[in-house]
This record gives sequence, C-alpha cells and structure tokens, in this order.
Amino acid sequence: MYDLIRKKRDGESLGYEELKFFIDGYVAGTIPDYQAAAFLMAVFIRGMTLEETVMLTQCMRESGEQLDLSEIPGIKVDKHSTGGVGDKTSIALAPIVAAAGIPVAKMSGRGLGHTGGTIDKLESIPGFRAELSTEEFLKSVKRTGIAITGQTGNIAPGDKKLYALRDVTATVDNISLIASSIMSKKLAAGADRILLDVKVGNGAFMKKKKEALALARVMVDIGNSSGKRTMAILSDMNQPLGNAVGNALEVREAVATLRGEGPEDFYCLCRELGAAMLMLGEKVQDLKQGRDMVDHLVSAGKAASKFEEFVKSQGGDPDVLERPDRVLPKAKQQVTVCAEQNGYITSLNAESIGISAMLLGAGRAKKDDVIDPAVGVVMHKKCGMQVTKGEPVATLFVNKRDNLEKAEQLIRDAILVAEQPPQKSEMILGVVE
Amino acid sequence: MYDLIRKKRDGESLGYEELKFFIDGYVAGTIPDYQAAAFLMAVFIRGMTLEETVMLTQCMRESGEQLDLSEIPGIKVDKHSTGGVGDKTSIALAPIVAAAGIPVAKMSGRGLGHTGGTIDKLESIPGFRAELSTEEFLKSVKRTGIAITGQTGNIAPGDKKLYALRDVTATVDNISLIASSIMSKKLAAGADRILLDVKVGNGAFMKKKKEALALARVMVDIGNSSGKRTMAILSDMNQPLGNAVGNALEVREAVATLRGEGPEDFYCLCRELGAAMLMLGEKVQDLKQGRDMVDHLVSAGKAASKFEEFVKSQGGDPDVLERPDRVLPKAKQQVTVCAEQNGYITSLNAESIGISAMLLGAGRAKKDDVIDPAVGVVMHKKCGMQVTKGEPVATLFVNKRDNLEKAEQLIRDAILVAEQPPQKSEMILGVVE
Repeated sequence: MYDLIRKKRDGESLGYEELKFFIDGYVAGTIPDYQAAAFLMAVFIRGMTLEETVMLTQCMRESGEQLDLSEIPGIKVDKHSTGGVGDKTSIALAPIVAAAGIPVAKMSGRGLGHTGGTIDKLESIPGFRAELSTEEFLKSVKRTGIAITGQTGNIAPGDKKLYALRDVTATVDNISLIASSIMSKKLAAGADRILLDVKVGNGAFMKKKKEALALARVMVDIGNSSGKRTMAILSDMNQPLGNAVGNALEVREAVATLRGEGPEDFYCLCRELGAAMLMLGEKVQDLKQGRDMVDHLVSAGKAASKFEEFVKSQGGDPDVLERPDRVLPKAKQQVTVCAEQNGYITSLNAESIGISAMLLGAGRAKKDDVIDPAVGVVMHKKCGMQVTKGEPVATLFVNKRDNLEKAEQLIRDAILVAEQPPQKSEMILGVVE
Repeated sequence: MYDLIRKKRDGESLGYEELKFFIDGYVAGTIPDYQAAAFLMAVFIRGMTLEETVMLTQCMRESGEQLDLSEIPGIKVDKHSTGGVGDKTSIALAPIVAAAGIPVAKMSGRGLGHTGGTIDKLESIPGFRAELSTEEFLKSVKRTGIAITGQTGNIAPGDKKLYALRDVTATVDNISLIASSIMSKKLAAGADRILLDVKVGNGAFMKKKKEALALARVMVDIGNSSGKRTMAILSDMNQPLGNAVGNALEVREAVATLRGEGPEDFYCLCRELGAAMLMLGEKVQDLKQGRDMVDHLVSAGKAASKFEEFVKSQGGDPDVLERPDRVLPKAKQQVTVCAEQNGYITSLNAESIGISAMLLGAGRAKKDDVIDPAVGVVMHKKCGMQVTKGEPVATLFVNKRDNLEKAEQLIRDAILVAEQPPQKSEMILGVVE
C-alpha cells in the first residue's frame, strides 16, 4: 500500500491489480483508514486518468454483490440523479417508462442534508414497503414491471466504506471519485442501460455547467467502457424542481404530474428523461419519438395506472393516486411567506429551501435523524414570475415549531426579487452520450 | 479539522492557531489518524510556506516537555546530523568542544535501517549508560561539561506521533515536514545554538546537493526565527564516513581520531563541525581560529582526556581510550572482500555498505530488532584510491553467518573500480547560516 500511495503522490498512474489490492484490502480491513486517507488525498490532488477511474469503478463494483437481472425479460434501463431539491422524478418517471414495457428494477437512496431521497418520499404513502429483499424485489419487477427499493444486499461495500472516509477527509469533491462512486453502485445494480440526470446549479452538488459536463462525461465513459450503454442529461437545479419540497408533498406532486396536472418544469424534465429511457430501452428511435410517447402514456392514463399497480404491489394504498388528500399525512399548520416587494423573482436558492424543509423535519441533518413525512415547503412562484408585495410566494407545512423561525428566514433569504425579469432559464442544459 | 484539510488541500496557508489545533488534537487523540494522514498528504503535495513551517515546528516543540538548561552556565551548543553511514561524529566531536569549555548536553538517537545511532554505538562500551533521567543528564553536564543520552522525558510527542504516521503514508520525504520534525526536537532540547550536519549523497536522506541546501536553508531559518542561532554544514555522504561501520568498530575509530590517529575524511569533518561549534559557542571569532583550536585540543590530548572523563561519568570503562582492543566486544570471525580488478575506486555506495552492516547485525531492520555491537564492516580503501586485483578492500566482522553471503555481495556491489581515477570529492560542500 505504501508504494501505491507513493506512486499516486508522485502523479503516476495505477493499474487494475493495484487498485484491486487497495479496494479489497480496504474492505477486508487489512489496509488501515490512515493509509486509505493519504491515498485519497493524493488521488484528489493528482487526479486519475479515465482508465484508472474506470478500473477503480470496476474494483468497487466487484467488492460486493452484483444483482443479476437476467431472469427479467427485456432491456432493463436504470436512472440515477446526482441529487437536488424537490427531486421526486423517479416517482413519476418509473411508472411512465414501465407503462411503455421497460422493466424498472430501481434501487434508490434516502435523503441527507438539503437533498431528499426517493425511498423516504415513497414511505410517506401509508403501507408502502420500500425495503425489499432481493427476492421480493425481483418478484415485484417480474409481476408488475416495476419495483423501487432501498439498497438490497451488500452492493459496492468498497464504495460505501470509502465514501464514509472521504466525507471526513475533505476528499469528496473530486470528479473521478464522485463518478466511480456513483457508477460502481449503478453497475452493480444490474441494469443493461443507464440514464444519468446530472443536476447543475445552486441546489446541486455541481454548481457550474462546466463541472457538471465534466462529471457527466466521465460517468458516461465509465458506463460505456463497462459495456453498458450510458447517457447523461444535464438539468437545471438553480431552483427547486417543481413546487413541492418534502416527502408527502412531493408524492402528491408526482401523482398530479402522472395525471397531467403537474408543474411545467417538472413535467418537462420527466418528459426528457422518459424519452431518453425509452430510447435506451429501444422502444423509440429518437428523443422526439420518446417525448411523444411520454405525452401519450400520461394523457392516456397508462402511466397513472402503472403507478397504482406499483404502489399496490409494494403494499401501499393505491388510492393515493385518486385521493392523495385522504391517503397522505398532512401537517397541522401552514405558514405563508409573502413577497416583500413588487417585481420579478430572479433567484430561488434551492439549497436554502432544501435546508429550510430539512429544519422543518422533512430531511436529515445526521444519518439517523427521523423524518416527518408530512412537513415541507411548497413554492407558489418560480423564477421569472412576477410578484406583488404581500403576495404569497411559499407555504411552509409545519408540525413542530422548533425551527420555524429559522426555516422561514431561510425561505425569505432564498427569494430574490428585482425590477427586471431574469433571462429565461432552460430546464435541459445538455446531453452527453 | 475538516476545514484545515480542505484549506491545505486547496493550497491555502494555515495560521498558528490552526496548526496548534491540529498538533494538540492529534497528540490528545481527538483528531484521528485518517484525518491527520489526509492532511499530511495535502501538506506533502501542496507544500508549506516558511512561516507555516516555523509555526508547525513551534507547535510540535510545545506539544511536550522542553528541557531547561539554564542552570548550566555558558552557551550550550547542540549538534544534529541528518544521518549517514559510519557517522560516529558526535562521539569524537562532543569531547572536543567540551574540552574547549562548551557545555555539551546532547540527546541522540538509535539506528534504523542503513544508518546507525550514537546511542547504540556508545552502548558498545561496557558499562556505558546511555539512558539517563533528566536529572542525571543535567548533573552529568554540570559535573563533567558533557553528557550524551537517549531522549529524556516526553520531548515533542507531536512530532513522534506524526513521524510514525508519515512513515506509513508516504509523506516522509518533504522538506517542510523533515525540517520541522528535526527542529522541533532540537529546539525542545534546550540548547542556545544549533549546528546542523546535513549529509548529501548516496548514503544520505538527501541524495543531491540542491535538496540538501534547501533543507539546510529551512532548518537554519526555523532555528534563527525561533531565536536560537543556527548554522548548517553540508557534508559528503557518497561513501561511508571514515572506515568503520558498526557500533564497537566505530567507537574504536572515534577513539583513534581523538588520539590523532583517525581517518583523514572523518577528522576533516570533526574539525570543521568543531570549528563551527566553537564559533557558535563564542570561543573563537571565525572558522579558521576554530579549526586551529580543534587541532590543538586533539594534539594536546585534551579532547581525549575529556572523552575518558565522559565515559567514566556515564558508567563506561574509560580504558576504552587506551586499550580499545581489551575493552570493546570483538566479532568471532573476519571475512575479507577483495578488489576484482586493477584500477581506482570511483564509487563506494554508502547505503549498500550500511545495509550490509545491518544484515550482519550491526543495525536494525525493524525498530525492536536487537543489535550486535561487535559486528560490522571496515573499509581499507576509499574513493579515489588505487587497488590491484585481489587486494583487500573491506573486512566484514561476523558473529552469525546467516546473512553473510548477502552482506558480502552488497559490499562487492557497492565497490566500483575503473581505469581512471575519479574527480577528487570534497568533504565539506557548503555552509548555510
């Protein structure tokens, strides 16, 4: 290990056997944290070639179980988002593509910090079981064509252990390490094709388009080098996605979207990602055909029916589709935040809004915090919209008043109003394949 | 700590409070090894300014006990060597300067790898006690004007703990870290002035003069910035110093040197370092006067008498001066290595010769190996000398034959003979103050 650290310290490239030795030794505990930490810092500063990054991904993927989806017929297409605020995309998108006959066997995560997690959101549906065994998971996909679960089994333990170390050694923010971390899990999850939703903006991990493009490029190259066709779509995260931030609130918005009544920006993203997944799954020839098919699946109610089937199959109350108000948990109190001046909203800081929702109980500051499914924030105005002084811009859904003042202040600080309207922002910022 | 790692990772400079937080937290165990390791790698690659290096030294110096030599009258001058092969300098040098009335209160180390340690060498004198308590140490200096001991008390524990971590994380070989490690201990050891013997060459830590000069510059700057006048002399380590490598063998050579019968190169170094210490101790005005005084102290037998006094004071048999053959342990067997061709010796790889002696038992491969004081290597020829085929070049002093073949081969490999004599090499390569 000493020699590996030294080589990387001096900017040399490492081979597969060396990276394998590192990951396997680190997982087995024969390589101590301090050597791994020194190595990570050397990687962070000196960088890794694409070849090294592909091999590191492979070693982490091979460090644990790999899901075998071969008994499910058809081309399995997975989707991964780099995380944002109000990102309930999987909940709407999975039923859309499943309705087109693409098997969706998706593992999702829980929320931490200002970003939420699909598993937490789905669990706000009464009865919904989001922690399936591998067997249940595969059975569900075979039965209904769709299943979403928390991580089953021991997927990429090398990544898990390394990520925990990166988190405390200031070595998170490196493209090779981020890309290999994400892709090792996605590749181990067994799908044939992978679509990446790379978020860009103040609520995303990547604040700038240039960084996001570079990360997308590396992840797509890793996927393609590993024999799994991979595509990335860069999407805007300079304001929350859709209007709702908070678990049940977001499920409600996803349901509305499946019924054709969702917010414009969120539907736009679902449509684009859906088109790409349909293309990757060989249901359509190009993105244009894909978009049309998504429109059809939604307007004909096929996506909504698939959602009902999916919720029922995992034990949830399928009436959430028709009567979300009856089914989903509701907060006791609503607090309105109003515009403080006339003008146009030029910025809505997504990270601040995400932290505000977290403070209300919708998210976790620490890994073992318990979340409240009912609370959160709903925006009434988005960037570019005109407001008059005193007009409601956001509503906070509140159960405990502990952090209310702080949460309100964060929302107020997140809203920038100016006299002139801002430049119109695009939801889709680029495609990498 | 996370923020400190991040700052250094991004090449920013750290302040005294930050470095203090790091060293104190690391010694106390509140900062874990893995964060320290990531930090060290960031320091290694990004570097430290001189100001940061001075502050890091200060923090490590303050992390433990600091010796108070104020009750000893006179200007205390300490000397430190960066380590080489056959470096018995302190054993001859300390009595020389003590004979001039400069109090010598010296802490020395033990050997590891291809380099030996003064404490191990002195312990080959029967009865010699090299591990004194602080009280005994100070009493000895007051009584005889000279004492040499292993580290007393808890000197610079921050450096000790950090050095052990650097050793396993490939972060040893950095000038700021080397300089602050050496200087933190020297400053804590309490002398008023410091002379550094920075070795350069194949048997030294610094292989090239440029690196050695840079290290010397930083150490001298640290010393002077800390209010202790510091000087460095760069000396040659492209062949073993003197002829003997091995503990009792080196004591014997040091004794011969104090009697005016030592090898030319070794006496040359003692003379130069002695002159510098006499100057730092304000016994002479310049190096020229210092050299003359060293010559006088040796030729008049004053240095030899002081050595006898010193050995006696620490419990050793003072007869080692007059009858080293009777007093010092002797190896059972001698094995001669002869020249394989006619010509001139152009190179004697000091590191190989050091490892050869270590394999015979004179040194330690691991920290807790037990050494054999009697064994080692004596060179009969040095660089530039003419040899004829079959003529003895070195003698191995052997007790156990386990590694004899390897040790012989290393000596053979260390000797380069060519038809033309090499350029004459200088013992003293530079002075930094």
